[in-house]
Amino acid sequence: MPVTVPPEETAWLLHHVVGFDALDPGDTAAILVEATRFAEGVLAPLERDGDRIGAKLVDGRVITPPGFKEAFQAYAEGGWIGTAAPEESGGQGLPDVLALAAFEPVSSANMGFGLCPMLTQDAIQLLATHGSADQKERLLAPLVAGSWTGTMCLTEPQAGSDLGAVRSKAEPDGNGLYRITGQKIFITYGEHDWTANILHMVLARLPDAPAGSAGISLFAVPKFLPDGSRNPVRCVSIEHKLGIHASPTCVLAFEDALGEIVGPPHRGLPSMFSMMNAARLGVAMQGVAVAERAFRRAAEFATTREQSGGPIVIHPDVRRTLWTMRALALGGRLLTLYAAEQQHRDPVRAALLIPVAKSWASDAGVEAASLGVQVHGGMGYIEETGAAQHLRDSRITPIYEGTNGIQALTLLRRGLLRDQGAALGALLDEIVAAEGVTPALREAAEATRSAAAWLRQAEPRAAEAGATPFLNLVGTLAAGWLCARTLARPDAPVAARTAASVFLDQVLPRTMAFGAATVTPSAGLTGTELVA
Amino acid sequence: MPVTVPPEETAWLLHHVVGFDALDPGDTAAILVEATRFAEGVLAPLERDGDRIGAKLVDGRVITPPGFKEAFQAYAEGGWIGTAAPEESGGQGLPDVLALAAFEPVSSANMGFGLCPMLTQDAIQLLATHGSADQKERLLAPLVAGSWTGTMCLTEPQAGSDLGAVRSKAEPDGNGLYRITGQKIFITYGEHDWTANILHMVLARLPDAPAGSAGISLFAVPKFLPDGSRNPVRCVSIEHKLGIHASPTCVLAFEDALGEIVGPPHRGLPSMFSMMNAARLGVAMQGVAVAERAFRRAAEFATTREQSGGPIVIHPDVRRTLWTMRALALGGRLLTLYAAEQQHRDPVRAALLIPVAKSWASDAGVEAASLGVQVHGGMGYIEETGAAQHLRDSRITPIYEGTNGIQALTLLRRGLLRDQGAALGALLDEIVAAEGVTPALREAAEATRSAAAWLRQAEPRAAEAGATPFLNLVGTLAAGWLCARTLARPDAPVAARTAASVFLDQVLPRTMAFGAATVTPSAGLTGTELVA
Repeated sequence: MPVTVPPEETAWLLHHVVGFDALDPGDTAAILVEATRFAEGVLAPLERDGDRIGAKLVDGRVITPPGFKEAFQAYAEGGWIGTAAPEESGGQGLPDVLALAAFEPVSSANMGFGLCPMLTQDAIQLLATHGSADQKERLLAPLVAGSWTGTMCLTEPQAGSDLGAVRSKAEPDGNGLYRITGQKIFITYGEHDWTANILHMVLARLPDAPAGSAGISLFAVPKFLPDGSRNPVRCVSIEHKLGIHASPTCVLAFEDALGEIVGPPHRGLPSMFSMMNAARLGVAMQGVAVAERAFRRAAEFATTREQSGGPIVIHPDVRRTLWTMRALALGGRLLTLYAAEQQHRDPVRAALLIPVAKSWASDAGVEAASLGVQVHGGMGYIEETGAAQHLRDSRITPIYEGTNGIQALTLLRRGLLRDQGAALGALLDEIVAAEGVTPALREAAEATRSAAAWLRQAEPRAAEAGATPFLNLVGTLAAGWLCARTLARPDAPVAARTAASVFLDQVLPRTMAFGAATVTPSAGLTGTELVA
Repeated sequence: MPVTVPPEETAWLLHHVVGFDALDPGDTAAILVEATRFAEGVLAPLERDGDRIGAKLVDGRVITPPGFKEAFQAYAEGGWIGTAAPEESGGQGLPDVLALAAFEPVSSANMGFGLCPMLTQDAIQLLATHGSADQKERLLAPLVAGSWTGTMCLTEPQAGSDLGAVRSKAEPDGNGLYRITGQKIFITYGEHDWTANILHMVLARLPDAPAGSAGISLFAVPKFLPDGSRNPVRCVSIEHKLGIHASPTCVLAFEDALGEIVGPPHRGLPSMFSMMNAARLGVAMQGVAVAERAFRRAAEFATTREQSGGPIVIHPDVRRTLWTMRALALGGRLLTLYAAEQQHRDPVRAALLIPVAKSWASDAGVEAASLGVQVHGGMGYIEETGAAQHLRDSRITPIYEGTNGIQALTLLRRGLLRDQGAALGALLDEIVAAEGVTPALREAAEATRSAAAWLRQAEPRAAEAGATPFLNLVGTLAAGWLCARTLARPDAPVAARTAASVFLDQVLPRTMAFGAATVTPSAGLTGTELVA
């Protein structure tokens, strides 16, 4: 039984619901079929050992689980790292929306593996956007080819959600390069044995840097220097995490490590933020991927596990659970791909929806993974079954690339308050007038309009208290609308139709709760005394 | 910082909201203070190693983590195993509702530890209710004293939710005893090194047993026979679980093990079900306990973790998360203690609400534990922080003692359909007329009435598809009503007042979603084709 979404279904959704038309539908499907074949054939079989054995730090070297290095080489040779990278750097120059869709089966099959190409693609995008011509010339090709990988070195012990608190230092070395010193934590694939080199994208402060977030610069710091010598970037430890065990999460110590500046001095954070949308969409897709994978594992269990004389899948309560999982995956997929496509059609709408997609789809992934454990009953609690791994793996997605609470504040401040509700209003107008809209959807859209109006006139702390339910409201509504668009097409794939209809029946009603929770902040939320 | 709920707050809730009045309020508080002191002082310090080291099977013997055996002995010496057991068996004969409340800090401090006394108390209740005078005389005292522990041997590989499929056999040995043969799985503390003996309560079939659930008998099978010889009950393996690592979950092989029958032949399931209410309330309390513990850990983190110049607890979104956790714990605690108290006041209402409490409070525990991970940000994903353990531990509670899906079907069939909605109707009448009822509560009560009416006229499969959202509806409403009762008392503890108000603002609105989801079963849920 396949462990990922049928590629033909995703291709259909892209062309008929999401509005993607940059390729011929047959070509879209062919690319997704190939990605799926690789994911199912090469990556899925490694997943269990990736979790069980995990990455290990031995004498300063990170040892990844068996087979992962070879899988990465095959992945790179297949051209999957550079799917959306510029052709002049060896990429395929395909649309980023398609690359995002092709990432879903990869992450479904093996989330711990997928993180490395995902971060490498972030580095590629950073360099392609902010690197000098010379940097692009030297640094992009090996990343795109997969002979190097990339990392994002942002977080420090005292600087998590608040990157303005970064303390790592960069001293000019007098030859146009910089000596970087500092400690970075939570560095995904910060060290490994897969490739000849690793290129770290590092936030640090120049000696003359202004305080706070306006004084942070971006540097590219390789593990090995061009002369082959080892740059002093050491993996001090790797974290013992709840999940994604295959992926080494490193503490990196930079000790006068040589690097080059990327983009102008003190403009590191804006450079980083320009890549943030792609990174957030990647995490959203991880949420979708784990929801779909959890669904497929649970569905297989439910069709084979017999109780009371038949497979448990015949029970309506089990079916409700399974189809809710599938509906969450579908809603998240549509929302994520739609937000990605809007980057090229309506960037303002994309900016509105990308934090929503990151948060909504990652929460949906955790919910679906937890439901998947439940479908398995007692077996779901036993690690060998595999259902629990999805819950453990998924739980990081609401946290990294900006916690979901930060996404909600971004939606509130940049999505709603800054343009006085214009972008949201336009979306709501489109939803209420859309083909296939149901009375419940229309009602949810009006509830969203009221909640938005309330937030715009609320005290800032009251509005912040409502930010998360408001994001959930917008996300559930938008995903529901895209499900209705799916249902409005009689030629939609049958499973997508069923899932869309379960979304509208079982998930969309949550908008009522989110709307009410948005506009009733209790005193305990807006107060400032320490929690009792 | 304490890791459990303030005992004075629980005592206040018991006497002023739950309606418990079997003891003097000062005595209630004194007992809860003692339980809390033991939990905080002895059990909480063992929790982390309990998870990290876990129980191990070495040469057929289960080795539990360091300190657990001594903690159990101290717990037993404190009289906590027999808090509610009959005085003639060495128990304290205190009200079961108080024993349940006293279990909360134990489970908060160390869920893996608490399972052993919890299961032993189930065995005590089974024997006290169904054992012969002679059996009570011989078997109860060592269990109550904690010189033995008890287990529940129900599940077999092919018999999970469907216990009618049990295949273990019991052959009369000609001397009034029986030889038990079969394999039991998921046996909590089925083997350990804490006590001189273990008494297994085992479901098995007599040779002349009718097929199915009417042919199952209950046996008491000791690890060591009265003559000191080892009974052939072997621990074949222990499970590698997502959480509760300190608690060994055993596969037990019975190979002609000698046991005695408890209760009449073929009446094992009804005997077991008579103990089920207490067992379900225990699991509900585990959900409450983990929610409260996760809240306390997250609150401590949020008051000490600095970002952007202050502790993160000042942010309304963090406060929303923390207070939602506290509200879920409060709502679950009130619902569970109220359902327990109703066993003595209105057994029909208790039967209605106990499956609701088991399911609602266990789901609330998982939700709060997941929110607790979120409050910690990236640190929440690192095992050393401890937040992830609560999520892993909590995830079993919606599964064991009857999955939450089974609880929902019990509510539907036994709580609603069998009495044609009478017990629920009486509760709803009381809620809408209650002191402190809000318009939103009244609306939720009416939504519950409509959903119940819809379920009563629905096709059976459509009603089953709505059973889980209906249970969530009833649970959220009932917990909300008890929160309103708390708020109606100006002398309620301040933190309970804040949590109750956050419950009404942030959690109660979910009733709108649950009501709508109950009455709109999609075709995909009620159909019978295998899931695509």
